[in-house]
Amino acid sequence: MTENCRAMWTDLGLDLEGHTALLDVLGKAYQDIYLSQKNRPEAMDYFDFVMSEIHGLRIMELLDEKKAGRKIIGSYCVFVPEEIVLAANATLVGLCSGADFATEEVEKLLPRNTCALIKSSFGFKLGKVCPYLESADMVVGENTCDGKKKAYESLSHLVKNLYVMDLPQVKSEQAKALLKTEYDRFKAAAEHLTGVTITAESLKQAIRTVNAKRTAIHRLSSLRKADPAPISGLDALLANQVFFYDNPARFTTSVNKICDELEKRIADKKGVFPEKAPRILVSGCPQAVPNWKLPFIVETSGAVIVGEESCVGERGTRNLTDESGETIKEMMDAIVDRYFQVDCAIFTPNPDRLDHIQEMVTACKADGVIHYGLQFCQPYLMESIPVEKALEEKNIPCLRIETDYSMEDVGQLKTRVEAFIEQLR
Amino acid sequence: MTENCRAMWTDLGLDLEGHTALLDVLGKAYQDIYLSQKNRPEAMDYFDFVMSEIHGLRIMELLDEKKAGRKIIGSYCVFVPEEIVLAANATLVGLCSGADFATEEVEKLLPRNTCALIKSSFGFKLGKVCPYLESADMVVGENTCDGKKKAYESLSHLVKNLYVMDLPQVKSEQAKALLKTEYDRFKAAAEHLTGVTITAESLKQAIRTVNAKRTAIHRLSSLRKADPAPISGLDALLANQVFFYDNPARFTTSVNKICDELEKRIADKKGVFPEKAPRILVSGCPQAVPNWKLPFIVETSGAVIVGEESCVGERGTRNLTDESGETIKEMMDAIVDRYFQVDCAIFTPNPDRLDHIQEMVTACKADGVIHYGLQFCQPYLMESIPVEKALEEKNIPCLRIETDYSMEDVGQLKTRVEAFIEQLR
Repeated sequence: MTENCRAMWTDLGLDLEGHTALLDVLGKAYQDIYLSQKNRPEAMDYFDFVMSEIHGLRIMELLDEKKAGRKIIGSYCVFVPEEIVLAANATLVGLCSGADFATEEVEKLLPRNTCALIKSSFGFKLGKVCPYLESADMVVGENTCDGKKKAYESLSHLVKNLYVMDLPQVKSEQAKALLKTEYDRFKAAAEHLTGVTITAESLKQAIRTVNAKRTAIHRLSSLRKADPAPISGLDALLANQVFFYDNPARFTTSVNKICDELEKRIADKKGVFPEKAPRILVSGCPQAVPNWKLPFIVETSGAVIVGEESCVGERGTRNLTDESGETIKEMMDAIVDRYFQVDCAIFTPNPDRLDHIQEMVTACKADGVIHYGLQFCQPYLMESIPVEKALEEKNIPCLRIETDYSMEDVGQLKTRVEAFIEQLR
Repeated sequence: MTENCRAMWTDLGLDLEGHTALLDVLGKAYQDIYLSQKNRPEAMDYFDFVMSEIHGLRIMELLDEKKAGRKIIGSYCVFVPEEIVLAANATLVGLCSGADFATEEVEKLLPRNTCALIKSSFGFKLGKVCPYLESADMVVGENTCDGKKKAYESLSHLVKNLYVMDLPQVKSEQAKALLKTEYDRFKAAAEHLTGVTITAESLKQAIRTVNAKRTAIHRLSSLRKADPAPISGLDALLANQVFFYDNPARFTTSVNKICDELEKRIADKKGVFPEKAPRILVSGCPQAVPNWKLPFIVETSGAVIVGEESCVGERGTRNLTDESGETIKEMMDAIVDRYFQVDCAIFTPNPDRLDHIQEMVTACKADGVIHYGLQFCQPYLMESIPVEKALEEKNIPCLRIETDYSMEDVGQLKTRVEAFIEQLR
């Protein structure tokens, strides 16, 4: 197995030494953060396995798909519609961006004052340690924040087949028309890449497949409302993270299997944390694998995370795509309708997000909100101040955190988080 | 005079104490930086007068215009078309954003990691020290960078009559159509504000008036090509800064008067710096009044600044609006054509800017480029790295500077600038 993997990684052009170092760190972090948890649902075994093979078996599967003529499309954002990718007989994978790597090299191409997520995506490329990126036949960038849109200009010199999607900044009819144009253009690009013409049938099936993934995650989210919480925030976050990597149908089955188990736990009033443990909603920037820093701090401080208002979380999975369309046009319109609702902070103004945070606080029975901001992520950091103010006016306690992927501030964060949790008791 | 001013400032709701402190600092800085220069063109007297009365007589003029029924529109960006404002019988003024003020209050509303320009615009509002802002009947924001577009969401709670203009992020036909829609919407808003319907005649006259300002600045830019340089970069920057405040026709006359004098100086081979002094092009972020930090450092280090590739400079003034249209539609199209060429770093990709920098290096006979980046200004800081690389590949020396409005780093900057200038000799 390991020998096969090494050969595969070598073929992909990975830097074996750096990659081994990365996997060692990842493996140790997973051990310390995930496997040290008590009372985990048994069905999390599947996700433990996925994580142990995230650069192994899953990559082999993707390479097998490629051998069979299927294409792999990599993405950095929830605005890239998986429905279109699947309908064109391609596979969508999220690209590595949750850990610092090759920082010194990265800072030759990007300002130091760039958010950790963007730096990480460059680091994984420059360090040659992301098998997903190296397997991808097309990499999709998107004009979301200034940091990403300008970074893609430099990334285009590092990554062959970088495709950049434009996005609107407001929620107007003209903005929606831009999204439609861009999704039509992306559909044509996906068809060109795969040589497969999307049909009404393939698109309908793709919509169903992606909706099934989302529905499974909705079921999981809904079960997290129970007190005691039947699953940790760390484990639920992991499911949301694996959403971006795994085979869609298998993912759906696996999440539903966890949900079956959680339903039994709820009936038995069993949980991973004591009843009445303070309940936290995390809101803000995405937390990509292996960025488990904040939930680890929170859940080793006596509170449980009951929801993620985040791209890796409900912002990414909230809405279903309407399945009732019969023509390609109707279904493409439905896809546009669905994604245009995403309340990313790149939109101005973005009042829906505040509404959704409050809805989630109620739905998850959260006692407080931790706003997770990546340092130098202007859209979310800017938005966090009015969000905090609005929440506190409604007597919802809010803690604004600004951090990166380093471990230097863990002690300080833990102190702040503990004080916040104490206030919720 | 001072009594009249104090009454006026009080009526405008300014904080007299803070405002006096600001004017004292401004006056002293002007004395130290501007009036200490040797061999200035005599016609700069006008600009010295303008600066001494920038919160005095000019505000009185604006208030007189208001009494006569004219409206004042304030702007933070060169994407707000002065042609439309003038045609609607209103006056456009740039809003204060070149100095730190009320920072502690600002950082309750904006993240600390926000660029100085944006923080400054909030500081002048919160500190109640900007008579332009307080005189304005409409304040125009625009969706340029993430920092500004998200900041306007908060500014809308501080400033009545905030109008926000959307902007595209790419240079495509659809993007241009968005700019057209937004300029049509702005035209309607200006007409609504003033009660004046823009006619073909008023629009044509407005285009001519604004083009005349730009043509005068082009003439000034062209004269800066001479060696020895007939005018300092500081003085030329001041003219570019006053471009945003002054009565347009009077500004044009005044700049042309300087140019007449500079032509004589050139004929006499007279300059403000010795012949063969190293010549610098400054490129990057705007330098708003009273942000004279970098040119002061450069020009007290033995070099002369011969051009500004900046919003307060050629990026703002480069192109004329075609005057040949006869209908409102033709002229509005010409306005869209003109502004759509602005090569702001918010666009992705933005290759025109690099071309323009290189054109300016040639035209100004610059020996090197200093890239001026405001700390936390993601678009320009991101772009500065490939710009520097491209320039150095063409053997154009480039120094990338990242700074803010504070004086803390002046010593360090001066050391770096001196070393850079030494390399150009």
